[in-house]
Amino acid sequence: MKKRNIQVCMTPKLFSLYADKKSIVVVVDVLRATSSMCVAFEKGVERMIPVSTVEEALEYRNSDEDYILAAERNGKPVKSFDFGNSPQVYLNMDVKGKTVVMTTTNGTKAINIAKKDHEVVVGSFLNLEALANWLVAKDQDVIVFCAGWKDKFNLEDTLFAGALVSHLLETGLYNDSCDAAQASRHLWDRSKDDLYAFLENSSHRNRLAKLDIDSDVHFCLKLNQTKKIPLLKGDFLVLEDK
Amino acid sequence: MKKRNIQVCMTPKLFSLYADKKSIVVVVDVLRATSSMCVAFEKGVERMIPVSTVEEALEYRNSDEDYILAAERNGKPVKSFDFGNSPQVYLNMDVKGKTVVMTTTNGTKAINIAKKDHEVVVGSFLNLEALANWLVAKDQDVIVFCAGWKDKFNLEDTLFAGALVSHLLETGLYNDSCDAAQASRHLWDRSKDDLYAFLENSSHRNRLAKLDIDSDVHFCLKLNQTKKIPLLKGDFLVLEDK
Repeated sequence: MKKRNIQVCMTPKLFSLYADKKSIVVVVDVLRATSSMCVAFEKGVERMIPVSTVEEALEYRNSDEDYILAAERNGKPVKSFDFGNSPQVYLNMDVKGKTVVMTTTNGTKAINIAKKDHEVVVGSFLNLEALANWLVAKDQDVIVFCAGWKDKFNLEDTLFAGALVSHLLETGLYNDSCDAAQASRHLWDRSKDDLYAFLENSSHRNRLAKLDIDSDVHFCLKLNQTKKIPLLKGDFLVLEDK
Repeated sequence: MKKRNIQVCMTPKLFSLYADKKSIVVVVDVLRATSSMCVAFEKGVERMIPVSTVEEALEYRNSDEDYILAAERNGKPVKSFDFGNSPQVYLNMDVKGKTVVMTTTNGTKAINIAKKDHEVVVGSFLNLEALANWLVAKDQDVIVFCAGWKDKFNLEDTLFAGALVSHLLETGLYNDSCDAAQASRHLWDRSKDDLYAFLENSSHRNRLAKLDIDSDVHFCLKLNQTKKIPLLKGDFLVLEDK
C-alpha cells in the first residue's frame, strides 16, 4: 500500500513549495492563535472567522450580529478589540454559541493562505491526539503548516509539527521522506519531556515574557486538553459536525 | 560587551528576512557545492567563479583563458562540462593555479543572492573549525545561509549550521536568540556522533544514492579536512590572502 505523505512547511513564505492542492493542511500557531481557537470551541464558541487584517475584523463591528472581535499584533491585543489572542480569556467568559472574528500576526494569515487550495484544520498541543486520530481516519496526505513569526522559522510551531509527525508515523501509514518533517520530529523528541524549558531562549517566549503573559505559554504547551478540531468551511471555522 | 548575532537562514527563499547588509554570510551547500569548493582550494585551485546559470558558465568556454567548467543540475553533472559538483574529482587532477567556473542547483545560487549586500564566505564540514576560528577573529555578526534544495529546507545544510553555531556559542561571544540557530544546534547535537546515519532518510542523500555517489556523501561529512576558507571578492572566490 502506498504510504501517505506528511510534509512540514516551516513558514508561510515557503508554503507555495509544499502546496499540492490535495493535502489536508494543519495550520499551527501554538503561541497563541491556534491554541486560542481550540479553547474557544472547547468553551462553546460556534464559529470563528479568521481574517488577515485588523480592518477586515473591524468591518464586523457594525453588524447586527453579536460578534466577539479578537485582534492581536506583535503579541499585544489591538486597542478597542474585545479580545487579543490569549486562550485564557475564553475560560471565564460565556462564549457559548458565539461567533468570534479573529485576526493575529501569523496564524490567521496562514489559514487564509492555505484555504485557497486546501482543506484546512487547526492544530495545537491542546488538541494534538484528537487531531492525529482524525487525520489518520481521513486517509489523505498532510501538510503541517507552521505560522512562524513574520515569515521566519519559529521553534514552538516546529515542535508541534514534530509531535504530530511522530504520532502519525507511529501508525505506519505515513512516509518519512520530508526533511523538514524529519527535523521537526527530532526536535520534538529532544524537547517533549519539558517543552517549557526547551523553549527557554526561543524568540517568541521571550517576546511574550516581556508582555508578562508567561502563563499563556504554560497553558499552550499542555497536551490533549480538548478533542475539538476546528475546521475551515468556507470563511468559517466550525466543528466537524456543524 | 554586546554579543554578536548569529542567525541561520534555512533556505534561499527566506534570505531577505535575515539579510541586514552587515553580517558576514556563510553559504553552505554540504552536498556538494561548498564541499567541492573547499576541496578545490585545498588542491591548489586559485580562483572559482560561481555563476547562477548553465548559460553563464558556457560563456567562459570560448575564452582565451584555460577555465575548468563545472556544472550540476538535479544532482547530475551537466553534459559537455568538465566536472559536475563532486568534490572527489579534484583529488586526482592537477588543478593547481586553475580557475574553475561553477554552477550548481542550489549553492552557487545562494552565493549570488548573498553577495549583493554582504561579505560571503564558503562553509562545509570540511573546513568547519578553520571557518569558526576565522569568524571569531572577524568580530562581526554572522548569517549561516543554507542553500537547501530548490528553496526547500534540507537537513544536511542545517546540521552544518548547527555545528558552526555550536562552535561559535562556545566562545561566549555570540548570542543564542535566533530560533533557527537554536533548532540547528539541537539537530547537530543529536546527529554529531553519526552524521551519515542521521541523514539516512534525508531527501538529498536518497537522491544521491540513486545516482550511485554515496561515497561523495561520506566524503562531505568528514570534519576539518582543510583550513582553506574560500571568500568572495567581487565575482571570484579566492583564498583570503590572494
